[in-house]
Amino acid sequence: MSEKIVINEVGLRDGLQIQPKFVPTAGKLELCHALIDAGVRAFEATSFVSPKAVPQMADAAEVWAGLPLDKGVDYSALVLNEKGYERARDAGAKVFAVALASTETMNQRNINMGLEQATKSFAGIIARAKKEGFKTRAYVSTALGCPYEGEVSVKVVLDLAEKMMAAGADRLAIADTIGAGNPKLCETIIKAVVKEHGAERLGVHFHDTRAMAMTMSWISLQEGVREFDSSIGGLGGCPFAPGARGNVATEDLAFMFNDSGYETGIDVAKLRRAVMVAERLTGLKLGGRITDWWVSQERKAAAKAAIAAE
Amino acid sequence: MSEKIVINEVGLRDGLQIQPKFVPTAGKLELCHALIDAGVRAFEATSFVSPKAVPQMADAAEVWAGLPLDKGVDYSALVLNEKGYERARDAGAKVFAVALASTETMNQRNINMGLEQATKSFAGIIARAKKEGFKTRAYVSTALGCPYEGEVSVKVVLDLAEKMMAAGADRLAIADTIGAGNPKLCETIIKAVVKEHGAERLGVHFHDTRAMAMTMSWISLQEGVREFDSSIGGLGGCPFAPGARGNVATEDLAFMFNDSGYETGIDVAKLRRAVMVAERLTGLKLGGRITDWWVSQERKAAAKAAIAAE
Repeated sequence: MSEKIVINEVGLRDGLQIQPKFVPTAGKLELCHALIDAGVRAFEATSFVSPKAVPQMADAAEVWAGLPLDKGVDYSALVLNEKGYERARDAGAKVFAVALASTETMNQRNINMGLEQATKSFAGIIARAKKEGFKTRAYVSTALGCPYEGEVSVKVVLDLAEKMMAAGADRLAIADTIGAGNPKLCETIIKAVVKEHGAERLGVHFHDTRAMAMTMSWISLQEGVREFDSSIGGLGGCPFAPGARGNVATEDLAFMFNDSGYETGIDVAKLRRAVMVAERLTGLKLGGRITDWWVSQERKAAAKAAIAAE
Repeated sequence: MSEKIVINEVGLRDGLQIQPKFVPTAGKLELCHALIDAGVRAFEATSFVSPKAVPQMADAAEVWAGLPLDKGVDYSALVLNEKGYERARDAGAKVFAVALASTETMNQRNINMGLEQATKSFAGIIARAKKEGFKTRAYVSTALGCPYEGEVSVKVVLDLAEKMMAAGADRLAIADTIGAGNPKLCETIIKAVVKEHGAERLGVHFHDTRAMAMTMSWISLQEGVREFDSSIGGLGGCPFAPGARGNVATEDLAFMFNDSGYETGIDVAKLRRAVMVAERLTGLKLGGRITDWWVSQERKAAAKAAIAAE
């Protein structure tokens, strides 16, 4: 099993989308650059959705045009319908993320379609992207629990995953959109999905609403998953999912994986600047669990340097 | 494998000992009662150590005298030498925790003895307690890393564990005193200890300094461990271990276990009051990762109640 891990930074999309204060395009790109400087090589860079529904993403095309394309970085664009797909494609996107929620109500709230219609719609986008020469990444979202309907059966998750893969999705990701999962449920679902589709094309997306995202990430790793969504500083939430909190923090996740001998390619110390950029842009106090430890390490290093300089 | 889990609350000892503001005996007992009300049934209640070294524990005998003994609650007392053992015994303690650090330097700093002398000293206390009809719980501390010497070999941990068990310890606990461990290392050590001594008499003690305590707790559970130390609100640290942060928060840990189908016997919602008591006593802002989620749930419930009352 590979020791290489891809951390897919979703702060620019999932992290920012709920923020009431509009972050100018230049700020979004500054954050992207800070993350790249720390070694992040995969981003969900933005979403091409209705600017009325998600004003923060109104500059999706401008963000895309400004992404640094010369550093071996992978970008995906979230799209929720054909119109969004076309906008993203015309802006230059090559990888498209779609997010099929696991329940009737969540799809209704998110994209104004029922589950069956949503499944068909996303399958159509996946097939079209494939035909037009692009890659897709299909999320089965609210897979560990729905804010409106509660528990989701593993059977439903497997069924939706199967339909997305059958439509031609290149990658599959299981998303606990609101942080409703627990380690036991996570293990059950990831084992079941891996059994059907293998772990090679599988990713996970966890929110830390109930303090279990790190543990669920580790469990997924044990099942063979090597692709993890996270957001810098734990930035995030979902405007249509009440109670949702931020994604697991990129710095916490990268640190745990690095320290355990896996290779994320991320220099965790350098993520500190990215957290600071995100704080300045949003006006929020951000930072994962390791923040205080980071600060104490920096103070120690500064004290040592001061002594050495004397 | 049993679904029953013992959460051993160490907030009154490990949590409070570093706090500069002395918490009056009545306050300590109030916190204990609040935790019992929430279903906590095991405590490391205090430590009988030098009041000069740890002023916060100067009232150990008074705390012990005030503990509610009529509710099926188990209490242990931390002792670091014969004198402490005698003080604790005379105060009425029946279960004694000893903490043997895994390195030369940490033992020197903690109890002014080298590793060999410390090992003999704790073995002596264990043997004496056994002879006098009492139970003991032997911690192998700084087992996942030492603030002075860094990495600790698994061989050393196994050797010290073996010596404590050979001396007659009733229970063994592996402690990551400063939160230096990671999931990989944790798995390695716990597997090795379980292989030698089984999981039935084994406990773990993790600090969340580097955001991995929840994950390491889950991993230990998977290896068969059913006894977990934690502190309410994540209160804690160690005065002699620079960089140490609080223990994993009782509310986060109990919530994860309960939600995953294990039985801690703790009503997590009722822990909220205990956190508030701890905050009032220490003047600190406390609370595990689930705090914000808790608050949002309370607000929702209050809003619903207000609507229903109209």
